[in-house]
Amino acid sequence: MQPTPGKQLAITTDMLVAGTHFLPDTDPKNLGWKALAVNLSDLAAMGAQPRWVTLAGALPAADEPWIAKFAEGFFACAAEYGVDLVGGDTTRGPLNLSITAIGEVEPGRALRRDGAKIGDQIWVSGRPGLASLGLAQLQGKIELPGPWQRLCIAALEKPRPRVALGLALKGIASAAIDVSDGLLADLGHIAERSGCAASLQLVKLPQLRDLAGSGASYNADLRRMALDCQLAGGDDYELCFTAPSEQHLAIRRIAAELELPLWCIGEMIENPVANTVASPDKSATGKVTVFDPEGQPIEFDHQGFDHFA
Amino acid sequence: MQPTPGKQLAITTDMLVAGTHFLPDTDPKNLGWKALAVNLSDLAAMGAQPRWVTLAGALPAADEPWIAKFAEGFFACAAEYGVDLVGGDTTRGPLNLSITAIGEVEPGRALRRDGAKIGDQIWVSGRPGLASLGLAQLQGKIELPGPWQRLCIAALEKPRPRVALGLALKGIASAAIDVSDGLLADLGHIAERSGCAASLQLVKLPQLRDLAGSGASYNADLRRMALDCQLAGGDDYELCFTAPSEQHLAIRRIAAELELPLWCIGEMIENPVANTVASPDKSATGKVTVFDPEGQPIEFDHQGFDHFA
Repeated sequence: MQPTPGKQLAITTDMLVAGTHFLPDTDPKNLGWKALAVNLSDLAAMGAQPRWVTLAGALPAADEPWIAKFAEGFFACAAEYGVDLVGGDTTRGPLNLSITAIGEVEPGRALRRDGAKIGDQIWVSGRPGLASLGLAQLQGKIELPGPWQRLCIAALEKPRPRVALGLALKGIASAAIDVSDGLLADLGHIAERSGCAASLQLVKLPQLRDLAGSGASYNADLRRMALDCQLAGGDDYELCFTAPSEQHLAIRRIAAELELPLWCIGEMIENPVANTVASPDKSATGKVTVFDPEGQPIEFDHQGFDHFA
Repeated sequence: MQPTPGKQLAITTDMLVAGTHFLPDTDPKNLGWKALAVNLSDLAAMGAQPRWVTLAGALPAADEPWIAKFAEGFFACAAEYGVDLVGGDTTRGPLNLSITAIGEVEPGRALRRDGAKIGDQIWVSGRPGLASLGLAQLQGKIELPGPWQRLCIAALEKPRPRVALGLALKGIASAAIDVSDGLLADLGHIAERSGCAASLQLVKLPQLRDLAGSGASYNADLRRMALDCQLAGGDDYELCFTAPSEQHLAIRRIAAELELPLWCIGEMIENPVANTVASPDKSATGKVTVFDPEGQPIEFDHQGFDHFA
């Protein structure tokens, strides 16, 4: 491979295991797309331009139609994002896909997780939560209204890594991450690595209008589930990032240019006072607090929400 | 990662599956060493200086002592060869290790598989075959003489990638590969990619003196097995390479400097005449023929040897 002179390299690796990260009977074409897309999402969160990828896979058997469909999805994603497959390995074993993606970025300009400052605004792209709603729909746990079904299942099966957004945020965002582990968990990673905490306004999250119906057909369970998925659902590949408030308009302009909604959902704050030298509370670093419309903090634990007030 | 200005990158990826590539009860420290070493061997075969590595692993459970020992072996190998671990992923699943290694090489100087020319001499380093003899010993299929046991099991469990050899061969070798699939199969890859065939002299292979005993204690089965392992045994990480005959002395000098035996075992030849336009025989391209001390070709198939004359 011939690196672009003067660039640094960013690298990411992901291992996807059947039964853990995807259902063994997943459409192989979607799986091929997604296996690459989730890696490109990590490069996007670094503000890197994806260049090369390697693919190693273990397969229980040499199932040629399965491989052909997987390759179709994989190469469709590679073509869409201008990435070259430059190496690989195939072997027999329980279904497992391991991908390493390499991108390029100007020296010192990579987006990191540790650059957020107290007072920075917190942003998120798109509509996190759709993928886990799609999964719940496929698992028969919920019944989404018709138009939402296609949207949520597409978010789950064919995520679109936010590469253009990551590139646009260089020099603007102070920290970035993708929300593959869920918005709260991943924002918590930024807060922890940046030595501060985060405050989110529930009312500023993207509104999933009509999802839970209205009036007589209002479905409170679905509304609760949607909030849970927005805040703690994984497998979304939107970017969460922080930026000084003076970048607010620049970010609104990026949203318009990319035709991608960007939501300002909160701000980075000091660690709670409990975290003092006299009374250290390490759990306070990286703490993310969500406030309801009345300004009351909502209780939750790391497994999800105890309740919504 | 900051690439060295003016260098190209070489990349390799390998997936190791429990039960296929290693026994599930393998000493995790040895496994950690070997998982990295086999990737560095691929970089060595390209003449690349190893720089960075990523490690993704699926584990059935978070077995901390196992992981600590694996890491000890992995980082010992990384330190020995000056490689930095720059990324990774861990997940739950059937034991699987996937490693991607990146090295650097001067533009256009990487050793390739397709550069061998008719008349080039064929070389191999060290003593290929030891690893598969070690495996046969561990599996109870053979009983090696005492001094050979340690040597063969070490070749299996703690292979030493020939990085310094690969670096020294740049500008000297015309093609190179490691013999991880067995000498004949991997030399066949060079021949096929280079559009020619190969002729090996059995008598020029490294002698495994005393391995099969002598006189009354001569063990013909062990001798046969040793030849089979030398030619077709996998899991060795020696380099097989080709070079013009005028490089013979330069290669002998490299052997002396590295204190590593290098054996001139044959030469690249034209494809057999059967492979004509009128009578195409694609199997003739890449064919490797082994000659016995009387100059008679030895019959074998790709699964191994039918007999030794």
